[in-house]
Amino acid sequence: MVVTPWEVRGEIDYTRLIKEFGVEPLTEELLQRMKKMVGELHFMLRRKIFFSHRDFDKVLEDREKGEKIYLYTGRGPSGHTHIGHIVPWIFTRYLQKVFNATLYFQITDDEKFLVKRNLSVKQALYYTYENSLDLIALGFKPENTRIISDIKAIHLLYELAISVAKRVTFSTAKAVFGFEDESNIGIIFFPAIQAAPAFLGSKIEGRNLRCLIPCAIDQDPYWRVTRDVAPKLGYYKPAGIFSKFIPGLGVKGKMSASEPETCIFTVDKPEEAEKKIMNAFTGGQPTIEEQRRLGGKPEVCPIYLYYYFIFEEDDEKVFERERQCKNGELLCGECKRELAEKVSKFLVEHQKKREKAKDLVDKYMLTDLELG
Amino acid sequence: MVVTPWEVRGEIDYTRLIKEFGVEPLTEELLQRMKKMVGELHFMLRRKIFFSHRDFDKVLEDREKGEKIYLYTGRGPSGHTHIGHIVPWIFTRYLQKVFNATLYFQITDDEKFLVKRNLSVKQALYYTYENSLDLIALGFKPENTRIISDIKAIHLLYELAISVAKRVTFSTAKAVFGFEDESNIGIIFFPAIQAAPAFLGSKIEGRNLRCLIPCAIDQDPYWRVTRDVAPKLGYYKPAGIFSKFIPGLGVKGKMSASEPETCIFTVDKPEEAEKKIMNAFTGGQPTIEEQRRLGGKPEVCPIYLYYYFIFEEDDEKVFERERQCKNGELLCGECKRELAEKVSKFLVEHQKKREKAKDLVDKYMLTDLELG
Repeated sequence: MVVTPWEVRGEIDYTRLIKEFGVEPLTEELLQRMKKMVGELHFMLRRKIFFSHRDFDKVLEDREKGEKIYLYTGRGPSGHTHIGHIVPWIFTRYLQKVFNATLYFQITDDEKFLVKRNLSVKQALYYTYENSLDLIALGFKPENTRIISDIKAIHLLYELAISVAKRVTFSTAKAVFGFEDESNIGIIFFPAIQAAPAFLGSKIEGRNLRCLIPCAIDQDPYWRVTRDVAPKLGYYKPAGIFSKFIPGLGVKGKMSASEPETCIFTVDKPEEAEKKIMNAFTGGQPTIEEQRRLGGKPEVCPIYLYYYFIFEEDDEKVFERERQCKNGELLCGECKRELAEKVSKFLVEHQKKREKAKDLVDKYMLTDLELG
Repeated sequence: MVVTPWEVRGEIDYTRLIKEFGVEPLTEELLQRMKKMVGELHFMLRRKIFFSHRDFDKVLEDREKGEKIYLYTGRGPSGHTHIGHIVPWIFTRYLQKVFNATLYFQITDDEKFLVKRNLSVKQALYYTYENSLDLIALGFKPENTRIISDIKAIHLLYELAISVAKRVTFSTAKAVFGFEDESNIGIIFFPAIQAAPAFLGSKIEGRNLRCLIPCAIDQDPYWRVTRDVAPKLGYYKPAGIFSKFIPGLGVKGKMSASEPETCIFTVDKPEEAEKKIMNAFTGGQPTIEEQRRLGGKPEVCPIYLYYYFIFEEDDEKVFERERQCKNGELLCGECKRELAEKVSKFLVEHQKKREKAKDLVDKYMLTDLELG
């Protein structure tokens, strides 16, 4: 099992990961406490897709007292957004709503430029723009959503970043991020840039507010370093709520953004997306007869995972689908057709909102600090 | 002999340094070529205080053809400016005039914050402001002088800096700058920030112009890395004109900004400065009788060095002073009194201009790129 911000490999044992990373499990007690406050638990909490945390109890405590908190998450703009990317954004949208919180959404165009040999600054900024449209199309509002392009908003991050950097030695960064002698000096500095937005809400407010970071567990090394530095800067340690690895939702069994036929992008034509789904591998049996007799394997089926992670919020329905698949009632063709319809409908709507977002994107970009 | 950007130690053999650093000597031929074009050679050229270069011949060639060039130098704002600091600025002012060139003057407040444990961002920015006043008071004009505070103008540097950083590995930076495992990740990135202004004039102009960097030879490692990267970014390699080490002009034999009594700051009261000079060690003999008989040693006398490096532009006069010292005609008290008068007069004038500069400083700060 290998879990780093760059590589996730092998059979993932999440109980072991909780122990190794030193995070806490999201207990039933915490979830009930949250439910009591906010009224409903998101299906990603009910299904334990978000399964662990750091200081989430303190976030709840702050909210119970009526104190503001803020959210921070982000995206590395190495290409177009695909369906897998928006899974945590949907959860973040829920957190934003129930916690009435400002979201700082960092788009790490500098990082992608620094690590991708053939990506130019211009291309990285192009994807910053394109990815922003997807975020906006999902319904985030400009009043409480600030999108940060590292390259375009560096003047708002740099002072925080050098304050972090001053307190992180190369040997720490090397141990945590696995830097090598051949790593470039930009990417070695980058963890400090990624840390900065965790303190931005407090800086803008002029007093300490708690930051909650929803993200996949593989990003945890960044937050460990950020949390170590936080008290030295006089800030709260950022809290985190961590998801399991969202599978790429690869329609051919694996997903890779560099192989467009393996995943569904938000900019795909609906009919293209439908075709990809209909051509996808599944967890089904080779013949109808075998499927009826033996049932399918939803746990390894990318089609089922689309339902589970994003397109079926209703627990009863998703587990009914699982049951019908396993006992051979549901055939792959039917299951695919239903998904294709849902995805197609989603894309049509999303792409309309995406068009509208083009007129709004400036309202979302953080360009200036209004300090409290 | 140790020569790095952080440490200069031992007896300096400049001929050996030229060979080891791979720079070129400033030959009589080049100087005559320059004199032909600009009419007069600065005393720092005549005295070989600036003694070596890289691509200075190409700068002359560009100017002979009527092509624009730009200048780049700077200052680490770790405290108030002292007299030693302004020696290269005076030479830069000359270059600016004779080459009719824009000067980019980088104040590395980020670097000083990153390397000085007890320096806050606020203090670094305070000295950025204070040091800027000195530059302005020396007569640089806002039309062709852009002062860059790294922290305040990072948005103008960052894209260039990450473009440089992408092409500099940790192992290169380690070899050139001597980084260690305990170096913080901010200072490891910093060479890319220092490289950026070398390309800024070309970026603003929208075409390749040659950059000339006047500075002390110990800064050469930065420019070696910058020159290696330049063609990969499509820019000219920056040219350089390098001075010998300007002695701190320490009035007690050595100079240290952390011991205020050892050097003369531009903000010192004129009478304080006079007192420091009158209390200074000299290269003189212990008694008047011995001085008359044996003569002084101007080559190790901080008082003489003040004349030589800054306060006596007239070669005949400075060498006459040297002669009179060596043969015992000139006594230390007299030599000090004359210097004290010159310094006092300089400070009175400088401090007046420094006051006026407070209303002008905003006009000098680079805050926006007007790209060509």
